[in-house]
Amino acid sequence: MAVYTEVPAEELAEFLAAYDVGTLVMAKGIAEGVSNSNYLVETTRGRFVLTLYERRIDEADLPWFLALMDHLAGRGLPVPRPLADAQGRTLSRLRGRPAALVEFLAGVSLTQPQAAHCRAVGEALARLHLAGRDFGPPRPNHLGPAAARAIANDLGDRLDRLEPGLRDRIRRTLDQVERDWPGRLPTGVIHGDLFPDNVLFQGGQVSGLIDFYFAATDLLAYDLAVARTAWSFTPDGRHFLPHHDAALLEGYAQVRPLAPDERAALPLLAQAACLRFLLTRAQDWFDPAPGFVQRKDPLAFARRLRHHAAPAPA
Amino acid sequence: MAVYTEVPAEELAEFLAAYDVGTLVMAKGIAEGVSNSNYLVETTRGRFVLTLYERRIDEADLPWFLALMDHLAGRGLPVPRPLADAQGRTLSRLRGRPAALVEFLAGVSLTQPQAAHCRAVGEALARLHLAGRDFGPPRPNHLGPAAARAIANDLGDRLDRLEPGLRDRIRRTLDQVERDWPGRLPTGVIHGDLFPDNVLFQGGQVSGLIDFYFAATDLLAYDLAVARTAWSFTPDGRHFLPHHDAALLEGYAQVRPLAPDERAALPLLAQAACLRFLLTRAQDWFDPAPGFVQRKDPLAFARRLRHHAAPAPA
Repeated sequence: MAVYTEVPAEELAEFLAAYDVGTLVMAKGIAEGVSNSNYLVETTRGRFVLTLYERRIDEADLPWFLALMDHLAGRGLPVPRPLADAQGRTLSRLRGRPAALVEFLAGVSLTQPQAAHCRAVGEALARLHLAGRDFGPPRPNHLGPAAARAIANDLGDRLDRLEPGLRDRIRRTLDQVERDWPGRLPTGVIHGDLFPDNVLFQGGQVSGLIDFYFAATDLLAYDLAVARTAWSFTPDGRHFLPHHDAALLEGYAQVRPLAPDERAALPLLAQAACLRFLLTRAQDWFDPAPGFVQRKDPLAFARRLRHHAAPAPA
Repeated sequence: MAVYTEVPAEELAEFLAAYDVGTLVMAKGIAEGVSNSNYLVETTRGRFVLTLYERRIDEADLPWFLALMDHLAGRGLPVPRPLADAQGRTLSRLRGRPAALVEFLAGVSLTQPQAAHCRAVGEALARLHLAGRDFGPPRPNHLGPAAARAIANDLGDRLDRLEPGLRDRIRRTLDQVERDWPGRLPTGVIHGDLFPDNVLFQGGQVSGLIDFYFAATDLLAYDLAVARTAWSFTPDGRHFLPHHDAALLEGYAQVRPLAPDERAALPLLAQAACLRFLLTRAQDWFDPAPGFVQRKDPLAFARRLRHHAAPAPA
């Protein structure tokens, strides 16, 4: 939640000249995302978000992310459309960093979403999955079970420092997830990180889906499991919110009905989703990237995992 | 340049309900100022800046600062006007911090201002000094020579770690500044920190003077000396910019002609201004406030001091 690369107004004005967006009126570094620098930019023609991609992101992936955003926006999803410069490029450079200018979308992220918001998010996610069907080429999900295994091995004993026995608990869950991973469910574009801070609301409607930098091609039901992990618990993971969860699932299924085998796989996929966030947070906890000071509690997902691992109430 | 206090959208919406500003459309934490949290807030009625005052500021001073901003805005200066809530208060509380909602002013801060910008800043500063004449009560400047002496004593030997001999150089300059401090020059409201990041420009015009949290009552010519320290050098202090300096002085004097004794005092006041920023930066260098990670090079002002202490070229 910081601006890592400062952009002098003079350089920004020059940068904007390559786009058909008028001239600079105002620019503010905004605290958004955790690993890129973002500016809210206003010109004589409108408002935009300028993103400078910092070291944490693989530059080779950026054209795919930007093409996806353009594709989804073109299908009517509330996704910020990247602007092309006079040469037709959506990816540029500024201050030595890869940079892109995208549409600004109004709205606010909610800290305490209600069930009605969860229903709207479920609908939006299903629309995203449908709109992504004709987007290619695929991009492998680098944060699936194999990555979770690698991070868990790398952290080893240190996991027990977060909570005694956590290392074993993760290992056993990973064994199960790998063994039972469903092989034949529908795949497509997933957002991969649809947490409340990546959804904008205005007047109760979803006005923006943002931060596509964990998007990939994977099981659509896995993306739904990520969204449930994000929206169906209090942020600290201490409380499961059954009405929120039901609303999210219903909203999703209303737009894209789940096949029986997708529904059957949800409990396992929920565990996989918990592991993904538990382990990347644990990695950031023990080995924070230089300059990225904000650490989030990994145990918030160990608690969710406990919920999903417990037998359902009779 | 960070947001220290996060404000959930739900709490912000509730906060805004106390003002006659419509309902929340969008809010972004912005990287502005170094010691407060700022949000750019858009409602159905317009745009505003919400500031949450963090621990570095003395809460008892806030009503004076806000009244000053209101006074200057009322005199036609491009200063953000604080909004009053339904109870008529401009100072409120949010998330346990003192908070104020002020007008949003468009424009950008310049990193490489040109001489014409310096002239505009000189004019704006003089207009500020004239508009402040009928604002009372006075507020002592807590960052004058006495404060510089206290910080220098506190840092002691550590100053020499920045540059060999710096401690002695500062002591000798302080001796001179205290001995020759002009007693009878015109006083009034000073901004106290009119650096390029506190001035917004739009189309070559000054569209905003912001960050009044070092404002005080002191010699008006001292404020001009601070502005020269800020605008008449490259940021690292290595190069004096004579055309910028001349333009700033001319712009100022065109609106508020300097008395002969003010003009005579300028060299000494320039040294005092350098000491103020050299020493507060040195203090932040050695004893950074917790959570305020951005350190600025104190030697940028040791270099300016050297320029001012050198005999003028023949």
